[in-house]
Amino acid sequence: MNLDHTAKGVYVIAATPFLPDGAIDTASIDRMIDFYLSCGVTGMTILGMMGEAPKLDSDEALAISKQVVRRSTVPVIVGVSAPGFAAMRSLARSVMDAGAAGVMIAPPPALRTDEQIVNYFAQAVTAIGPDTPWVLQDYPLVLTVQMTPKVIRQIVMDNPSCVMLKHEDWPGLEKISTLRGFQADGSLRPLSILTGNGALFLDFEMERGADGAMTGYAFPDMLVDVVRHAQAGERDAAHDRFDPHLPLIRYEQQQGIGLAVRKYVLQKRGAIAHDTQRAPAGKLTAAAKAEVDYLLSRLARHDPRAKLV
Amino acid sequence: MNLDHTAKGVYVIAATPFLPDGAIDTASIDRMIDFYLSCGVTGMTILGMMGEAPKLDSDEALAISKQVVRRSTVPVIVGVSAPGFAAMRSLARSVMDAGAAGVMIAPPPALRTDEQIVNYFAQAVTAIGPDTPWVLQDYPLVLTVQMTPKVIRQIVMDNPSCVMLKHEDWPGLEKISTLRGFQADGSLRPLSILTGNGALFLDFEMERGADGAMTGYAFPDMLVDVVRHAQAGERDAAHDRFDPHLPLIRYEQQQGIGLAVRKYVLQKRGAIAHDTQRAPAGKLTAAAKAEVDYLLSRLARHDPRAKLV
Amino acid sequence: MNLDHTAKGVYVIAATPFLPDGAIDTASIDRMIDFYLSCGVTGMTILGMMGEAPKLDSDEALAISKQVVRRSTVPVIVGVSAPGFAAMRSLARSVMDAGAAGVMIAPPPALRTDEQIVNYFAQAVTAIGPDTPWVLQDYPLVLTVQMTPKVIRQIVMDNPSCVMLKHEDWPGLEKISTLRGFQADGSLRPLSILTGNGALFLDFEMERGADGAMTGYAFPDMLVDVVRHAQAGERDAAHDRFDPHLPLIRYEQQQGIGLAVRKYVLQKRGAIAHDTQRAPAGKLTAAAKAEVDYLLSRLARHDPRAKLV
Amino acid sequence: MNLDHTAKGVYVIAATPFLPDGAIDTASIDRMIDFYLSCGVTGMTILGMMGEAPKLDSDEALAISKQVVRRSTVPVIVGVSAPGFAAMRSLARSVMDAGAAGVMIAPPPALRTDEQIVNYFAQAVTAIGPDTPWVLQDYPLVLTVQMTPKVIRQIVMDNPSCVMLKHEDWPGLEKISTLRGFQADGSLRPLSILTGNGALFLDFEMERGADGAMTGYAFPDMLVDVVRHAQAGERDAAHDRFDPHLPLIRYEQQQGIGLAVRKYVLQKRGAIAHDTQRAPAGKLTAAAKAEVDYLLSRLARHDPRAKLV
Repeated sequence: MNLDHTAKGVYVIAATPFLPDGAIDTASIDRMIDFYLSCGVTGMTILGMMGEAPKLDSDEALAISKQVVRRSTVPVIVGVSAPGFAAMRSLARSVMDAGAAGVMIAPPPALRTDEQIVNYFAQAVTAIGPDTPWVLQDYPLVLTVQMTPKVIRQIVMDNPSCVMLKHEDWPGLEKISTLRGFQADGSLRPLSILTGNGALFLDFEMERGADGAMTGYAFPDMLVDVVRHAQAGERDAAHDRFDPHLPLIRYEQQQGIGLAVRKYVLQKRGAIAHDTQRAPAGKLTAAAKAEVDYLLSRLARHDPRAKLV
Repeated sequence: MNLDHTAKGVYVIAATPFLPDGAIDTASIDRMIDFYLSCGVTGMTILGMMGEAPKLDSDEALAISKQVVRRSTVPVIVGVSAPGFAAMRSLARSVMDAGAAGVMIAPPPALRTDEQIVNYFAQAVTAIGPDTPWVLQDYPLVLTVQMTPKVIRQIVMDNPSCVMLKHEDWPGLEKISTLRGFQADGSLRPLSILTGNGALFLDFEMERGADGAMTGYAFPDMLVDVVRHAQAGERDAAHDRFDPHLPLIRYEQQQGIGLAVRKYVLQKRGAIAHDTQRAPAGKLTAAAKAEVDYLLSRLARHDPRAKLV
Repeated sequence: MNLDHTAKGVYVIAATPFLPDGAIDTASIDRMIDFYLSCGVTGMTILGMMGEAPKLDSDEALAISKQVVRRSTVPVIVGVSAPGFAAMRSLARSVMDAGAAGVMIAPPPALRTDEQIVNYFAQAVTAIGPDTPWVLQDYPLVLTVQMTPKVIRQIVMDNPSCVMLKHEDWPGLEKISTLRGFQADGSLRPLSILTGNGALFLDFEMERGADGAMTGYAFPDMLVDVVRHAQAGERDAAHDRFDPHLPLIRYEQQQGIGLAVRKYVLQKRGAIAHDTQRAPAGKLTAAAKAEVDYLLSRLARHDPRAKLV
Repeated sequence: MNLDHTAKGVYVIAATPFLPDGAIDTASIDRMIDFYLSCGVTGMTILGMMGEAPKLDSDEALAISKQVVRRSTVPVIVGVSAPGFAAMRSLARSVMDAGAAGVMIAPPPALRTDEQIVNYFAQAVTAIGPDTPWVLQDYPLVLTVQMTPKVIRQIVMDNPSCVMLKHEDWPGLEKISTLRGFQADGSLRPLSILTGNGALFLDFEMERGADGAMTGYAFPDMLVDVVRHAQAGERDAAHDRFDPHLPLIRYEQQQGIGLAVRKYVLQKRGAIAHDTQRAPAGKLTAAAKAEVDYLLSRLARHDPRAKLV
């Protein structure tokens, strides 16, 4: 079933599990999907940056996509960002044929002006075809491309197949408010907004009007709780669930080793068999692992799911 | 008294208070200094980026420096980063003559290679004179200049007047460990390391070997507590003091509005009369102010100093 | 007399002459101005990037401005780009009081979106005052700020005191055509367009509608000739004058040593006494000087003014 | 036959010909190869940036490689730069199996410090295998990665399979001299140095010690002449051949439309049937085409091969 603007909840950014020798760990893929489903996620996003997509060759990317789509009982979004449109088209067609719900596209770092950005996504839609639902990824911290709310509105209004914003600007709270304001004044059509940034601002993003989270923090079950409390208007409860995780969320924010932290915790939770990353990869020193263990032990006083040692 | 490598504790990054019309608020400067001193800081750093230094003209910068040095009972470090060495020299001489303890220098964004970085600081030392103690600012997230531990070691060993590192790399925990390791193996001389990043990682930075913090978070008294607990080896106590502040510290991390948050809280605490910034400046919306108020109210359950409303 | 949109011809980007010890060479300033005037320039621009402005302190910048304004018989534009508006305001007021014809402002590198750029120049005009004529510098190759023709149009239409564009985009020929097209369709008011880029594309820029050149190539007399031929519609003559200089113009394009080449040739032509630059500066090796000499000897076969050795 | 450090002459950067509908123009590939061979090139490099490699999907890239290797009578180098090592490995193995002489690798833009650069190429060599000869691409203007001569030396000395430098730094003349100096003092082993930058500095690069050119300027026959004259020590003859082409070489330097100029001229010369580029692509306006025609007509007075209209 195709993705549309009513999507909400937690779309987890799935890791890509590897065996110690760097080969794809297909057994762990199934195990990880089952883990995510047990956490209550409403969707999955694969082949994103934190899914080590650029480290896969094209055959591997397609094989993983097929396996995840087959196993998952919730919609699967596949990242198809590529250096060129030919590769983007190939992957988008293959994964949609395989049953993906939609694709996600990030702008290439070279884009600067509003016009360049708008034109790029027009060309991308031509490449993937106008009927393929897609997610617009707005991640200036890493991609260096800055899209104003007006530019996002223009992209959404120009391209009916754009159904979701992966909101990952930083700071980004006002951006959510501005976009929801555009919808209130009738200048922007309905659009699902899921937020990234490793959930660092999820508490307030929900209050500003987000529909949920799209991120890969190793406790997706907590994210599900926070989104549910927020949607029920239970502000204090949402923050009470969120705050004890903030020391670890913050620790995972460290670019370069954030994914190592995430895989280390996912392994401890039994979601994957190994925390292996493909090169180039930041590695956790013994000191860093001990810090994560300490954070988990402190977290366990508030959240029993963190009792992992 | 000149700064040296034994410096430790909390060197607060001082704000620059303005009147609503944008003029320097000299009355608030005195009030703010007294506030910082009452928090237990061991030093102050002025004219840093969060002190809105680039928004001052050269006469204003010097006048503020003189006022702070006169009032403060702890050492004062003055940021002298400038687009060229002539302006750097002028300011450094003037503030050292006025009684500053040392100066701080950030690398200009154009530097890329190890050689370029090392050469730049050699030229900077020629400009400020070999007897002026100085702080090396390592802030790649904003400055885009990446200095490896080896490059830092070379700069420190080449320039005896470099007595302190303002450590603001991100992630940076391993960098502290590596530099301390260099000292253990005898290849690096003693060096004070104070950490920035708005205190986001202060809990672990202390455990890795930092001598304290150099940042402007609006609760310097908490930073003083955390540093003291850490130096006493009271790990849990340090984290217990730190964690309740993390939601606000995290909120203040938002680039572009972080300083607005900081000045808003400093004003609430009575440290400055107005939260005015000079243009260009990010401003807090009503929604954002309400979020900060909410964070303060939650914080007040753990730290009575946050009872501000 | 204040600068306005009718400015045309060659506004030479003046070098800043130094003595071998790095002090300002005031005698050479007068000599250089007389040299430029003898070349037939219609204006001068000082304190630009190639004038080593960031290497001057504020007193030096003002002193040089006063000397040039006093000596020059053609309008003088002063670069007032600064890290903040307070310094920009101080310098702009001082030089306009001293008799400058206008100021030039470059956007700071951090600007990305169309909105950010437009807002920045609105703030800059507030800083320098609405009656100060100013030149918009569009130099993305070095400044990394990309302004589309539409953004330039908006800045010009928003700010009546913007009277000139220093066009230095690369490639930029279509930009000139587009801006002239805006004027043809009535959406842009009259605007002087002078081109930079070290004159590398001056031949075609004139044909696209430029009013002249604003650059510091060491043979401004040749630029004057090319502009005159182009304005007279003598296409072949313009290119015939231009082409023999292209090997040297190209050589001077090398960032980092381009200014060294320029000062070396200016010294040979007797315009300045020393080719000294302040640090940081690229220096010419013996091999590079010999290459410039060889280029001059080849050029001298076509242009007797290049007979310098 | 595998590439080694004795390579010299002109390795042309081959264009990728497309049909008007964007499909690969296989007939033109053969025609273009024959054209390049008739120009006297000693090698070819395909799937470089100017070969629109990122716009191909992996099947297309391999098919083109096989066709070129089959047709060419001179060594073929294939660009295998990729966002990750898995894709790099796949392509490198396939093209070497198909008979390529070597591969070319550019550093990804994120690399900053000397260590990061050295480590990256160590990992790349692991990916392609230690027996695959490869070319180190040094192109800071576009890639933003700055490699000092010492870093290049370390990469070459660490990796015996690195046999050639594609030198494309700007300014870069001193870099060639420095590297040749390293060889003279015995600290660097023999290495072929071919230069890029669209041949803008080929005249002097040869005099500094380059072994030839690796670029795609549409008159490779002229490049062959210049290299031959330079290798014979005929300085004036080399410059006399080179200078008349400089106006067009300069015009082709315009990033974004440079490839459009190149394909337009290649089509006029009969080397390819269409000047089509895949999106995203800069296009030549009628005014730009007329300018190229004018440049060709002026060039034809000196070089009869430019008589194309």
